[in-house]
Amino acid sequence: MTDGHTPMFGKLALIGIGLIGGSIARVARRDGIAAHIAISTRRPETLDRARDLGLGDSYSLDPADVARDADCVILCAPVGSSGAIAEAIAGSLKPGAIVSDVGSVKGDVVRQMQPHIPAGVHFVPAHPVAGTEQSGPDSGFADLFKGRWCIITPPEGADPAATEAMVAFWQACGSKIEVMTPEHHDMVLAITSHIPHLIAYNIVGTAAHLEEVTASEVIKFSAGGFRDFTRIAASDPTMWRDVFLHNKDAVIEMLGRFIEDLFALQRAVRFGQGEELFDLFTKTRAIRRSIIDVGQDTDAPDFGRNKG
Amino acid sequence: MTDGHTPMFGKLALIGIGLIGGSIARVARRDGIAAHIAISTRRPETLDRARDLGLGDSYSLDPADVARDADCVILCAPVGSSGAIAEAIAGSLKPGAIVSDVGSVKGDVVRQMQPHIPAGVHFVPAHPVAGTEQSGPDSGFADLFKGRWCIITPPEGADPAATEAMVAFWQACGSKIEVMTPEHHDMVLAITSHIPHLIAYNIVGTAAHLEEVTASEVIKFSAGGFRDFTRIAASDPTMWRDVFLHNKDAVIEMLGRFIEDLFALQRAVRFGQGEELFDLFTKTRAIRRSIIDVGQDTDAPDFGRNKG
Repeated sequence: MTDGHTPMFGKLALIGIGLIGGSIARVARRDGIAAHIAISTRRPETLDRARDLGLGDSYSLDPADVARDADCVILCAPVGSSGAIAEAIAGSLKPGAIVSDVGSVKGDVVRQMQPHIPAGVHFVPAHPVAGTEQSGPDSGFADLFKGRWCIITPPEGADPAATEAMVAFWQACGSKIEVMTPEHHDMVLAITSHIPHLIAYNIVGTAAHLEEVTASEVIKFSAGGFRDFTRIAASDPTMWRDVFLHNKDAVIEMLGRFIEDLFALQRAVRFGQGEELFDLFTKTRAIRRSIIDVGQDTDAPDFGRNKG
Repeated sequence: MTDGHTPMFGKLALIGIGLIGGSIARVARRDGIAAHIAISTRRPETLDRARDLGLGDSYSLDPADVARDADCVILCAPVGSSGAIAEAIAGSLKPGAIVSDVGSVKGDVVRQMQPHIPAGVHFVPAHPVAGTEQSGPDSGFADLFKGRWCIITPPEGADPAATEAMVAFWQACGSKIEVMTPEHHDMVLAITSHIPHLIAYNIVGTAAHLEEVTASEVIKFSAGGFRDFTRIAASDPTMWRDVFLHNKDAVIEMLGRFIEDLFALQRAVRFGQGEELFDLFTKTRAIRRSIIDVGQDTDAPDFGRNKG
């Protein structure tokens, strides 16, 4: 962890400056985690906005520029672009540099990036499990990672010191750390994040297409439960398209389980098996309790929004 | 609407005193909507708690007791008990009294209750689309209905003056009013409330039963999206068991649509149809916007809980 005086990295390069990149830039600046923050992103208007917000010390549309001489380069772009970015920066990475990312998918990102990492450069992928439904450089904030988990997935044979450096970096950003394999990460996130998003997108889509019930009724009466799903279904379309395309196997596997269980539940409704329903609904209530107990959600009713 | 001096009802009887009944009692007391509030509920300990909280003016374990001489009787119990309660109170209802309820299902509740309503008594079912994941008399609060919709579903031939009285009552409680048929209500709520709850219960159940991913991992990394579903899946098990058992047809119909769409989405993931995913995810983001624009949800990122 930084001692508040010596920065952990001399030059930190962020490639992509949306919600996650923008939050890293803010916490790194606030807490002196890096001496110099270099920012690159694909769209000129996003880079201009990052400059206006004062998120970095230097800016370039060319990722190779910001990667040059960086001690740590973190990809904060949709996972579909990981391979191309790794290829683009490969030639300008200095020996001993650490390359990392923040992607919600790990196995496929390792497959995309690893072939481009030069000898003598350390590759330590990571995934901070944090976010909101908003996107873009304006949506970031320094406390996004506070108390949230960051999963580090060092590939086989990764340099222990480089892994340690990324652990220390994410702890300095406020995260709690878990280390696991990319494959296990992709299963865990499929069920805790990817399937919930897919289902939320799906029900909002279904509701929008009904003819017996109009879109305006769906919107009007959304406080009955539906509105919760629309928050998640408002997440960044590009990011989530890439998640599903690049974690296909785990998503389809977990979706299969979900559908199997859903059919069992549908059958219980059809045949009026009240006890079965009651037992499930009692179990799920206990899981909510556990999440609150470990500090991963608020215990305020309705997330606290109802009494505002 | 009440003028703040003359109560709308002399005696208001609430049968059931959980989240909804408890909230009606509080707003009716605070705003002088009823001169006398009589409370009945099935379990002695719940009735004692309501008394300790000072929610009413009189209390009885016998619903017929509180219904006697009441100007308005509102059933606030799980919908499965509607018929039995209607039967129990039928003999003590005075001519001109209004009988209503707050059930999340309307068609089946009308079928259960209507046969027991004596001639000269008005039956005007209603459903305030409001709530939290909590239950019991302690969970209610006077502002629960503020700015939320209340759907009134007068049966064919209902007395217009009685319907008007219930409209005025719910407006006095803070609600906005919509009138529709019980059948249409059940379709609208199936998609905006019942299916979202069923899906939330289901995914929390699926996650709890995985072996590759442990329950502790599901809880730990729930901030990736899963935790949102657990809030809804923490709702009252008895109430929700009854909703699914008593709105079976609409639930199965809407669930069929949802599953059809989910298979199409699964296919898009399997065959890597990125544009299809992107288009859906863009549409759903717009629906979130509409819900915020009409004031049915907060626009604070992550429901405002992340910056607390």
